[in-house]
Amino acid sequence: MTSIPEILKGDRLAISRLLTEIENGTSEGKRTLNDLFPHTGKAHIVGITGAPGTGKSTLVNRLAYEYRHPSKDHPPLTVAVVAVDPTSPFSGGAVLGDRIRMRDVAGDPGIFIRSMASRGSLGGLAQTTAGLVQVFDAAGFEVILVETVGAGQAEVDIADLAHTTLVLEAPGMGDDVQTIKAGILEIADILVVNKFDRPGAKNTLRLLKNMLRQFDAEERNRLHHGQRTPFPDLPLPESEKNKACWDPPIMTTVATSGEGVSELMEGITKHRNFLLSSKQWTRKEGQRIKREVDTMLQQELLTRWRDSTSSTLYQRTLSKLIKREISPQRAVRLLLEGDQ
Amino acid sequence: MTSIPEILKGDRLAISRLLTEIENGTSEGKRTLNDLFPHTGKAHIVGITGAPGTGKSTLVNRLAYEYRHPSKDHPPLTVAVVAVDPTSPFSGGAVLGDRIRMRDVAGDPGIFIRSMASRGSLGGLAQTTAGLVQVFDAAGFEVILVETVGAGQAEVDIADLAHTTLVLEAPGMGDDVQTIKAGILEIADILVVNKFDRPGAKNTLRLLKNMLRQFDAEERNRLHHGQRTPFPDLPLPESEKNKACWDPPIMTTVATSGEGVSELMEGITKHRNFLLSSKQWTRKEGQRIKREVDTMLQQELLTRWRDSTSSTLYQRTLSKLIKREISPQRAVRLLLEGDQ
Repeated sequence: MTSIPEILKGDRLAISRLLTEIENGTSEGKRTLNDLFPHTGKAHIVGITGAPGTGKSTLVNRLAYEYRHPSKDHPPLTVAVVAVDPTSPFSGGAVLGDRIRMRDVAGDPGIFIRSMASRGSLGGLAQTTAGLVQVFDAAGFEVILVETVGAGQAEVDIADLAHTTLVLEAPGMGDDVQTIKAGILEIADILVVNKFDRPGAKNTLRLLKNMLRQFDAEERNRLHHGQRTPFPDLPLPESEKNKACWDPPIMTTVATSGEGVSELMEGITKHRNFLLSSKQWTRKEGQRIKREVDTMLQQELLTRWRDSTSSTLYQRTLSKLIKREISPQRAVRLLLEGDQ
Repeated sequence: MTSIPEILKGDRLAISRLLTEIENGTSEGKRTLNDLFPHTGKAHIVGITGAPGTGKSTLVNRLAYEYRHPSKDHPPLTVAVVAVDPTSPFSGGAVLGDRIRMRDVAGDPGIFIRSMASRGSLGGLAQTTAGLVQVFDAAGFEVILVETVGAGQAEVDIADLAHTTLVLEAPGMGDDVQTIKAGILEIADILVVNKFDRPGAKNTLRLLKNMLRQFDAEERNRLHHGQRTPFPDLPLPESEKNKACWDPPIMTTVATSGEGVSELMEGITKHRNFLLSSKQWTRKEGQRIKREVDTMLQQELLTRWRDSTSSTLYQRTLSKLIKREISPQRAVRLLLEGDQ
């Protein structure tokens, strides 16, 4: 049994255990998440994505340190790191975990690092990540950095989950049209050229600037803040046509030396303030919760249908389908309405 | 109205139009797919995946050409190419399309290339890809090459769809543990080291061989051929514990010059014959159809629920949830059972 009060006061062992429950998809984990829900909604969720080799882990490492030891006069913030790399067992996250733990944050209760090793979890990865983030949110972590490998669906998922999405590029990774992907212009709130001390860095910067210029800001807002949900026709309760625009800046860093990282942290804070003042914080939050409920609804509907259906009917129908005796639509009709 | 006979006899204009319907997710497209279903199940679906920069497009180009002009004594086969890169508008596929069209296949009715530009289609991409493949299958194309960027969910999706999955690696992309991903060992039926004329190629080859050796073949079969479905407890009608194993070979190519490509084509054919003789062809096919039906079921259940629910209840519940007055589980219960 997970104790809610222990999580809320940030007990590390209780948090660790709960994270494992959620990664394993146990019903205990789900129940606890549900109970924690009223205590969430405060953390600033920052997604960091980019191709392998752009230096995500190192930058996340530096950013976390920066939040704990800000050079200016803001107070240090507590930071949780969720590193998700579904394709690698040597997850950048794991490496990062070791590195940070050893050098900078041994014994610092204001930082918590979790790397997820799960692979091939069939669309469940996004849900698990969201669960981990909720735990850290409820436990009172002020900033949650979510590191994920940049590609296709994973990028869309992180942009859906995070308030602020950073997309990393690096010079020298073949600066052709194939490498710098268009998807980033839809999801990036801040573009970061990391490894800026490398040859070709200025080329990469110029290329990004050109791409950004071509990309109409309004189009971007439509895509980025547009509703994607199974219920497109039902408007959000608090939906409001907010025309305030955020032009994604391009920032440059050298994560290994720390150059540009405190400026990046300020850029992230600036985006947070923009979201709050333009009411987009609430709007994004509403959309996220809506998606979550829709997913839960779909799963629950399927469970209820299964409980009321004979497995013989299911198997018989499937057999006919595989033999091409019936079409898929007919199969679904048979399953939902019985033979007619 | 799409004419089924036109598709079945391979009319290019009719095929093009239908592909667009499917990409746009129209009900006309869905209806036609359903009607085409009895005519599918014959094509050999080959997935090609790998990180950007491994030379996927060039290799697919060469492979397509090779199938049309085999050097040995097999007859040429008809080929369809579906290029999916959800993150790039300069899709490798688009480039490929231009290249092939111009140089090799102008006027060749035995080849058809389609590149998908769709991005951010929220999990719908896999479904759309499967739809396009079905059209080509029904239209009589004997080999369907599906090119997709290699990362996370996209890789799992392609392995689910394809009979044979090729995973591309290339030397000089940073041959460290981060680049060669563990996921590939679960999904690759054939590993290809492309750009084998580059420095470091032999290192890449050795690294891959070592990784393969460590990866137990039985574990691989369990993962690869294991059932992943919302109905894990309902066995497949024709399920059979087939212990025949396929050890994924590592092949080397230089796609730009064509070196090794005819051997690769033979390797692909060999895998096809293995699938057919070991009955795994039927098994994979059954699993794929099962997943398809499960997805359709889930969507239909949601649609039916929506039609029977007031949007006022939905919005009121969502409002309460966003204000944290209720938990997500309670929200779902309210939506499914009304206030209690």
